[in-house]
Amino acid sequence: MDELLSVSVGGAFVGGDRPVLRENIDDLSRMVEEADVLLREKGRDDVDGFGWINLPYQDLSETIEIGRWLSGFEAIVQIGIGGSALGNRMLAKALLPPFYNELDASVRKAPKFYLLENPDPKTAVSLLDRLDLSKTAFIVVSKSGSTTETAAHFLWAWQKVREKMGERASDNFLIITDPRKGILRKFAKSTGCRSLNIPESVGGRYSVLSSVGLATASALGINIEKLVQGAKEMDQRLALRSHLWENPAWLLACINLLHAKAGRNMAVMMPYGDDLADFAEWFAQLWGESLGKEGCGTTPVRALGAIDQHSQLQLYAEGPDDKLITIIDVNNRPLFLLPDVVDIDALKDLEFLYGKALGDLLSIEARSTASALVKAGKPIIYLKIPEVSERYIGALVFFYEYVTALVGFLMKINPFDQPGVEQGKRYIYSLMGRKGYKEYVKEVEEYFGACQKMEIII
Amino acid sequence: MDELLSVSVGGAFVGGDRPVLRENIDDLSRMVEEADVLLREKGRDDVDGFGWINLPYQDLSETIEIGRWLSGFEAIVQIGIGGSALGNRMLAKALLPPFYNELDASVRKAPKFYLLENPDPKTAVSLLDRLDLSKTAFIVVSKSGSTTETAAHFLWAWQKVREKMGERASDNFLIITDPRKGILRKFAKSTGCRSLNIPESVGGRYSVLSSVGLATASALGINIEKLVQGAKEMDQRLALRSHLWENPAWLLACINLLHAKAGRNMAVMMPYGDDLADFAEWFAQLWGESLGKEGCGTTPVRALGAIDQHSQLQLYAEGPDDKLITIIDVNNRPLFLLPDVVDIDALKDLEFLYGKALGDLLSIEARSTASALVKAGKPIIYLKIPEVSERYIGALVFFYEYVTALVGFLMKINPFDQPGVEQGKRYIYSLMGRKGYKEYVKEVEEYFGACQKMEIII
Repeated sequence: MDELLSVSVGGAFVGGDRPVLRENIDDLSRMVEEADVLLREKGRDDVDGFGWINLPYQDLSETIEIGRWLSGFEAIVQIGIGGSALGNRMLAKALLPPFYNELDASVRKAPKFYLLENPDPKTAVSLLDRLDLSKTAFIVVSKSGSTTETAAHFLWAWQKVREKMGERASDNFLIITDPRKGILRKFAKSTGCRSLNIPESVGGRYSVLSSVGLATASALGINIEKLVQGAKEMDQRLALRSHLWENPAWLLACINLLHAKAGRNMAVMMPYGDDLADFAEWFAQLWGESLGKEGCGTTPVRALGAIDQHSQLQLYAEGPDDKLITIIDVNNRPLFLLPDVVDIDALKDLEFLYGKALGDLLSIEARSTASALVKAGKPIIYLKIPEVSERYIGALVFFYEYVTALVGFLMKINPFDQPGVEQGKRYIYSLMGRKGYKEYVKEVEEYFGACQKMEIII
Repeated sequence: MDELLSVSVGGAFVGGDRPVLRENIDDLSRMVEEADVLLREKGRDDVDGFGWINLPYQDLSETIEIGRWLSGFEAIVQIGIGGSALGNRMLAKALLPPFYNELDASVRKAPKFYLLENPDPKTAVSLLDRLDLSKTAFIVVSKSGSTTETAAHFLWAWQKVREKMGERASDNFLIITDPRKGILRKFAKSTGCRSLNIPESVGGRYSVLSSVGLATASALGINIEKLVQGAKEMDQRLALRSHLWENPAWLLACINLLHAKAGRNMAVMMPYGDDLADFAEWFAQLWGESLGKEGCGTTPVRALGAIDQHSQLQLYAEGPDDKLITIIDVNNRPLFLLPDVVDIDALKDLEFLYGKALGDLLSIEARSTASALVKAGKPIIYLKIPEVSERYIGALVFFYEYVTALVGFLMKINPFDQPGVEQGKRYIYSLMGRKGYKEYVKEVEEYFGACQKMEIII
C-alpha cells in the first residue's frame, strides 16, 4: 500500500528542562484510545459537530452537477468568511496553478476565482466594478445566514446583479447554507436560487470537504472525487491502527497535549512551498477555534518555508523554548534545473548551484531547518506527503481534523463550539444599530472607553 | 499639528493574576530614556545596524531616477527573500489598488509587480514562462549577494533573459546590494548592470525605507518622498517627546517588555483591512528576528481583522492569557453604502445593514473586538492611523522600527544581528554540495536522523 503521509517525531522528544518523554506518551495510551472510540461513535450517530467524520462517504453527485453549472461562468465570487472561505482558499492555492486568475482563459480552462471575505470597501468595489456581472456566479456561504460580513457583501452583490440582470439575477446566485434554518434558506426558497446544504452536524471550520469547499473546487477543475477519496483512505487506515505508536493521529494528539502541558503554548505550522501557504491559514482556524477555550489551547502560528527561514527561524532557534514546530515537506516536486553560468567570473562563488534542482532546494531547506532546530534543542514534527495533489491534500485535511478533535477530547474541552466569538458579535450588532442589541452599546463604551483612557497622539 | 497615529493602552494594564501596572511602567522610565539616547547616538555615528534611523534624511534623487527607468517596463520582478522582499510586499499591498496585477494597463498606469521569494519551481516557472522577458525588469536584492534562494532565482532569470536578449540582458537588470562587497557588486561591475546601494549600516529587516523598498515603490507610482517624509516627521516628533507618558514609542516598548516578563510570550499584530494584511508580515520579521535570541523574545503572531475574528478571536478571548494583542484601525476609509433590499421579505433580519457604510463596519469590528478582549481580561493596544496613504505608512513603519529597537535594548540584546539563522544556512550549503561545508553533512544526518528515528507511515 502506498503511503498517504509520514510523520517523524524523534525531534519532538527533546525539550531541555521540560522534556516530553516516550513514557509520558505511553501513559496517554488509554485516554487517546477512549477519545478515538468516542469520536467514532458520535460520528456514526451524526451528533452535532461530529458530522465531518462522515463527509468522506457523502454522495457527490449534486455538488459535481452544481460545479459543472458554475464552470460555465467567466468568474466565480464566493462570499463567506472564516470557515466559509479558508478551506476554499487553501484548496485553490494548493491545487490550482500559480497566478491562476492572471492566466489566459485558454490556459485556465475554468472560471476566475475570487473570495469576498473581509468587509473592506476598497477590495469589494474594485472587484465588482471590474467583473462582467452577467457572467459572474456568486456563491453565498453561511450556515446561519446572519454572519455580518457575509450578509453585507451579499446584499450589495445581489443589488448590483439585479441592477444589471433584473429578475434573472437569481440565475447567478448559489446559496450554501443550513438545510432548513436561517435567512439564506428562506431567500433561496423565495427567489428560486440554486442552493446546496451544509450538513447540520458539520461546523464551519470542519466544512471544507462539504459543499462549502467542494462546489467551487469542482467548478475550478479540481477533482473532488479524488480529494474525498484521499480523506476516506485516511479515515479507513486510521481506523485500523489500534496502537499508539502506529497511529500517527493518536501520536500527534498526545505529543501536542504533552508539549502544551510542558508550557509550550504555540503550535507552529510551517509547510514548505507556495502551494501549501494557505494550508497553515486553514489549520490556524481549525486549531485555534477548536482548542482555544476555558483557558486552554495552544496558539497556532502560521509560517511558510523557506520564506520564514529569513523571518522567524532566528526566533524559533534561539528564542524561548515555547513552541512545537511542525514542518511539512513534499516528496515529489517539479525539479527544474538551474543553469551553469560559467562565463561570468564574478559568479564563481555560486558554482555550487549550477545544475542543481530548484525543487530539491526546498526539501533540502526543510531538512536543514529541521536539523538546526533539533540541534538547538527545540521540539519538532517533520511531516511529509508524497505530492501536492487531490488525494494527498484530502488525506492531510482529514488527518488534521482528526488530530485536532482528539486533542480537544484529551484537553477535556468541546472542539466543536466557539462561545468566545459571541461577545464580539453582540458588540458589532449593537454598534450597527441592530434591534435588540441596544443594551450592549453601553458595554462597548465602557470597555473601549477604558482602553482609550490613556490615549497618546503623535 | 495633525496626528500621525494614536495609541490607546488602557486595555494593556489589565492582566488578571499577572497584571502590568502603571507603576511598573514608571519604573522603566530611566531605562527607556537611556536606551533612546543610545539609539540616537549610535544612529548619528552610523554604527553598523543603526543606519535605518538616518534613512528619513537620505537623498532620494538616484532612487527616483531608477524608479522612472523601471516604470517603462511592462513588468517588474523583484528577486529577494526576507528583508529583501517583505517590505516591498507590504508597501505594494498597502498603497497600490487591490488586484493590482489584474488591472488593465490603462488603469494600472505602471508595470505589473511580482516577487520571486520562495525557491518554488512551480511559481518561478509559471511566472517567467508567461512574461515577455524583453519587457520585464529584474531587480536582484541581497546585501551579501550569497543568499541561496535569491542566487538560485537570479542565475535562472539571468540565463533566461540572456537567451532572449543576448548581450543586452544587462539592460533589464537592476542590482541592489552592498556598496562594495559581495558577488552581486562584482557582477554589476563586470556586466555594466544598473545598481543601487544598500547602506552598509542598514540591516535587511530595517531596509524598507532604503533603495530595497523604495526603488520598486517609486516605479509603481507610490510617492516615496511622502513615505520618507512621514518617517521623518515621526522621527522628529518622537525626538521631542521626552516623557514616558507622552512618547508612544517609549510607552509601547515598556509595555511589551513588561508583558513579556509577566509571561505573555506572544505579540499579536492584528491590523484591520486588506491593505494592511502584509504589514503584519513585515512586522513579524522585524520583531521576530530582532528580539528572538538568547532565549528572549516574544513571538509575533500575524493576524488580520476582520477575518481572524472568525478564526483566532475565540482563542484570543477564551484561551490562555499569554498574548499582548495590538489592533490597528484606520480612521478614514472609503464609506460605500449598503443598499436597502426592501422587497424581499426573507431578508428582513438584515434590515440593520441597510444604508450602513461598509467602511464603518471594519472600524466597528475593530472596536468591538477591542472591547470583547478587554472584557475578557486580555491586554490589548489599540493603535489608529488617520488613513492608509504614503505619509502615514512611512510614519507607522518608522514607529515600529523604533519600538522594536528599544525593546531590544530593554531586553539587553542586540536587535540588529541574527546569529541563529547561520546554522541552517551551513546545513543548506552542505546539502547543496558547496565547497568548504562538507563537514556539516554529518551533522544534518545526525540531527535529521534523530528526528526520523521514530517515523510512522500511513
